[in-house]
Amino acid sequence: MSATGLLKLRPNVVKSFFRTYKASGIPELTQVRHNVKRGNYATLEGKDIAFFESIVGKNHLVQDDLQGYNVDFMRSVRGSSQLVLRPSSTQEVSAILKYCNERKLAVCPQGGNTGLVGGSVPVCDEIVLSLARLDKILHIDEITGIAACEAGCILENLDLKARELGLVVPLDLGAKSSCHIGGNVSTNAGGLRVLRYGNLHGSVLGVEAVLANGDVLDLMSDFKKDNTGYHLKHLFIGSEGTLGVVTKVSMLCAPQSQAQHVAFLGLSSFDDVLKTFRDSRQFLGEILSSCELIDANSLDASVNHFKLNSPIEGYPFYMLIETSGSNAEHDMEKFNRFLENGMEKGQIIDGTITGEVGKMQEIWKLRELVPVALIEDGFCFKYDISLPLREFYHIVEVMQERVGNLATRVCGYGHLGDSNLHLNICCQEFTQEIYKCIEPFVYEYTSQVKGSISAEHGIGFLKKNYLKYSKSPAAISKMRELKQLLDPNSILNPYKVLN
Amino acid sequence: MSATGLLKLRPNVVKSFFRTYKASGIPELTQVRHNVKRGNYATLEGKDIAFFESIVGKNHLVQDDLQGYNVDFMRSVRGSSQLVLRPSSTQEVSAILKYCNERKLAVCPQGGNTGLVGGSVPVCDEIVLSLARLDKILHIDEITGIAACEAGCILENLDLKARELGLVVPLDLGAKSSCHIGGNVSTNAGGLRVLRYGNLHGSVLGVEAVLANGDVLDLMSDFKKDNTGYHLKHLFIGSEGTLGVVTKVSMLCAPQSQAQHVAFLGLSSFDDVLKTFRDSRQFLGEILSSCELIDANSLDASVNHFKLNSPIEGYPFYMLIETSGSNAEHDMEKFNRFLENGMEKGQIIDGTITGEVGKMQEIWKLRELVPVALIEDGFCFKYDISLPLREFYHIVEVMQERVGNLATRVCGYGHLGDSNLHLNICCQEFTQEIYKCIEPFVYEYTSQVKGSISAEHGIGFLKKNYLKYSKSPAAISKMRELKQLLDPNSILNPYKVLN
Repeated sequence: MSATGLLKLRPNVVKSFFRTYKASGIPELTQVRHNVKRGNYATLEGKDIAFFESIVGKNHLVQDDLQGYNVDFMRSVRGSSQLVLRPSSTQEVSAILKYCNERKLAVCPQGGNTGLVGGSVPVCDEIVLSLARLDKILHIDEITGIAACEAGCILENLDLKARELGLVVPLDLGAKSSCHIGGNVSTNAGGLRVLRYGNLHGSVLGVEAVLANGDVLDLMSDFKKDNTGYHLKHLFIGSEGTLGVVTKVSMLCAPQSQAQHVAFLGLSSFDDVLKTFRDSRQFLGEILSSCELIDANSLDASVNHFKLNSPIEGYPFYMLIETSGSNAEHDMEKFNRFLENGMEKGQIIDGTITGEVGKMQEIWKLRELVPVALIEDGFCFKYDISLPLREFYHIVEVMQERVGNLATRVCGYGHLGDSNLHLNICCQEFTQEIYKCIEPFVYEYTSQVKGSISAEHGIGFLKKNYLKYSKSPAAISKMRELKQLLDPNSILNPYKVLN
Repeated sequence: MSATGLLKLRPNVVKSFFRTYKASGIPELTQVRHNVKRGNYATLEGKDIAFFESIVGKNHLVQDDLQGYNVDFMRSVRGSSQLVLRPSSTQEVSAILKYCNERKLAVCPQGGNTGLVGGSVPVCDEIVLSLARLDKILHIDEITGIAACEAGCILENLDLKARELGLVVPLDLGAKSSCHIGGNVSTNAGGLRVLRYGNLHGSVLGVEAVLANGDVLDLMSDFKKDNTGYHLKHLFIGSEGTLGVVTKVSMLCAPQSQAQHVAFLGLSSFDDVLKTFRDSRQFLGEILSSCELIDANSLDASVNHFKLNSPIEGYPFYMLIETSGSNAEHDMEKFNRFLENGMEKGQIIDGTITGEVGKMQEIWKLRELVPVALIEDGFCFKYDISLPLREFYHIVEVMQERVGNLATRVCGYGHLGDSNLHLNICCQEFTQEIYKCIEPFVYEYTSQVKGSISAEHGIGFLKKNYLKYSKSPAAISKMRELKQLLDPNSILNPYKVLN
C-alpha cells in the first residue's frame, strides 16, 4: 500500500466530520457560556486599516465574509473578528506585529484552522493573521531527509513533495489535506505515527518565529545536532501561537517505507490487549508503525453508522496494528510470527492481516470513522487524554458506571501505542445533568493517575480552565512569566492556554 | 553482538584518553588564558558551611582533595572551588540553591564531569553541587518502555537495568560508564545512536528541575504525548545547568534489538561516501543504527598508535555502517543487497561485514580509538561541527591547504549520518602560529555554510566566545533574557554558555 492511497480518503472524512458536527447541536458560542470578557485592547480604527493595507495590499486585507476565519472546525467557538490579514512574507508578518504591539491590537494567528480546542479562531474581535500565503516549500534534501518550508505550507503538499524523493514527513493527521505545518508545529500535533517517528520536538530541526514586538527570531537549522546555547525553538513548539508566530520550519523526514501491512485483531480482555502491545514491540520492533485500540462500542458506531463490514466481530476489544518496512517479505514473516505467538498464547482470538491497499483502507476506515460516527448519536463529550497503560481502559468502565442511562454510549479508542485514549460519552442531547456527572470528574481522575488532560489536541481556548489538572502552580506561574517576557502586551492569541 | 559487550571496552578507552591528554601539554589553566574576571559573588563564610552541613550532613560536605571536582575530563579548565556539596534529594538541592541565591553564592552543578567544553567544573571558586548521590532508578515500564531516574544515575546503570527488561536507553556515549543522566540531559548529549533514536528533546518525556531560587519545577511525565501548555522541560535540555539543576528525568526506552551487524567499507571518493549513505537509508531503512565516516588519516592514527589491524586498507575513505534489527537473517539479507548494490555501482570498492561480537568490537575500535590516537601526535585542535553533507569533507581539505606543514595531520571523522564532523588538526605542540591559522577561520567557515560550531559537545566555558558564529544577536539576546528570568542573580554555572 502507498500511504498516500490511504490518505486520499481523509479529506472526505474531514468534510463529513464537519457536517455532522454542525448538526449535532453543540452550542456554537462557547465564549458566551464561558463569560469571556474582552481584554483591554485597542479598537480597530481607520488609520489601522490604512497601515495594514500598505503592508499586505488591498487584496489581502479581508473585511467581508469572515465566517470561515471566525468559526473553528468543531464549530465550538465563534469569534467576531472584523479583519483578516494575509501577509506573504516574514517581513510582512513582522511589520504587522510590530504595529499591533505598539497599538495594543490583539492578534489571532491562524493556519489551516483544523484545531480541536478553539485555539485557531478569534474569541472576541482579534485581528486574524492568516499564514496561508506563506506556503512555499524551501528545500528538501534527498540524502539527509531535511526539509524546510514556510509555515503556511499544507502538510500534505510537503509530504507529496517528500515522497517524490523517497521520503516521508514524520507526521500524519486526519486533517493532513488542510492543516499547515506552522499550525502543526505551534500545536505540537500528534496523530497516527507518533509511535514510529516520535513527536515534533524530536523531528523539528529549526523554526523562524516572529515575536510580538515584530522581532524575527531566526532559529532555522538544517542539522540534527546543534548544541549552541539554549534550544529556543522548543518555546514555539506547542505554545499555540501565544509566544510568537512561526513563519518557517525545518524538519527531518524519514525514508519512505517500501511495504505496509495492517492486521485487525479481536481480543477478549484488556489484559490481552496490553500483552499483545508488548509483544508487538518485541516481534515487530523497528517495523511497527501504528498500534490502535478500538473497543466494541466504538467499532459498533462506525460499522453501523457507515454500513461498513468488519472482518471480525463479537469481541470486546479490537486492535489495529500496522507495520511499515523496507522489505515486504521480511515484514510479513515477522508479522506472522507475532500473530502465531499471540494466538498460541490465547491473547489474540481472531484476526485478519493484509498488505493490499484496498483492504488496508477498509480496515483503517473502521478506526478512522469512529470519531465521526460517535457524533451521530446526538451529542458527544470528547476527551483526549494520556493515561498509564495499566489504567488506560479503566476510566471507560468507571465512566460507564457513573453516567449509566444518561448516556447512549460510553466508549474508548485511540493510540494505545502512545498511551493516548480518546474517551467518548454520547447522549441524545447536551444536558447539565450528564455534563456535571462527567466534568470535572474526568479531569480529576486523569490528574490522580498523573495522566495528561490533553494528549495531543492542546489547551487552546476550550481547555484553559482545566490546565491546573496537568500542570503544577509552579509550572503555570513559570508559563505566565515566559508569556510576560515574550509578549508583554499579551497581543498574541489572547484568551488561549493561560487564563 | 550485545551492545553491552561492545561498551565494555569503553571505560579503558576513557581512562587512556585522560592519561594521554594529560601528557599532551595542553595548558591546564584555560581561564587564565581567557582572562576570566571573578563575578561579583559573595565569598564563602563560616556561617555558610554551618548551614550547608545542616542540610547535607558532615560527610557530604567536602572541603579537601577537590582536584577531581575542580579539573575537567580534558584538563582544559581548572577551577578553585573550596567546597563540594553532595545532596541526596531534590529537597536538599532546593534548600542549597535557595540559600545560595539569597547569599549570592555561585554554584557549579556537576554530574559525571565527562563534558568536553569545560561546562562541568568551576571556573573560579563556585561551590560544586555534585548530583552523584541522586542515583536512584525510579521505575522502568516493560510495556511502554518508559523509564524514570534521578539525575545522578549513571547512564550505563540505567541501560543495564533497561536491558534486563528487553529495552535499551536511546543514548550511547563513550563516557557511558561514568556520565550521569542529568548531565546528559543538561547538555543534550549526542553520541553514537542519534541516527537511530534521535536527540534527547525527542526521547526525554519529563524532567524535574530546581531553579536558582530553590523552587522545584516538577515537569515529570510518563507520557509520550502531553500537550498541556508550554513545553518547559526543553528549557533544561541543553542549557548546561545555567537555567536550573535537573534532579529527575523520565525518558522513552526503545525495544532492544535482537541482532546487530557491522560493515567496514573502503571508498575512493567523498562523492561515493555520500551516495553510499543515501543508499544505506534506502536499503537498510529501519534497521540502520550507525553510519560513521573515517578518513585515511584518521584510520592511520588509530591503526598505528594502537597496533590495530584494519580488515581493509589503502582507501581515502572508510565507512562503518551498523544495523540493529529484530531478525538476524532478515537484517543480513538487507545488508547483503545494500553491499551488492554499492559494489555493482562501483561506489564501494572493498569491505567486510560481520555479526560476530568479537569482530564487531574490533571494527568499532578502529573508529572509537581515533580521537585518542590523534592526541598522540603531540597537541591536537579538535572541532565538533555540523555541516551540510555536500560541504562535509571540504573543510578538511581546505584546512590541509591552510595549515600546510604546520600540522602533522589534518583529518576528519565522525557521525556522517548526523552531519556531524569531528575535524582534528594535529601538531607537535601548540603554537600561536598554527592557532591563528585555524581560529577563528574554522568558525567563520562553519558559520558561512550555516553549520553549527558545536554539534554535540555544547558551549560550556570553552566555546562561549564563539557562540555568535551559530546564534544571531536576536537569539543571544533572548537567551540572556531567559537567563535573567530564571536566574536573576546569575548564580547557576556562571562563566558558561553566555558571556
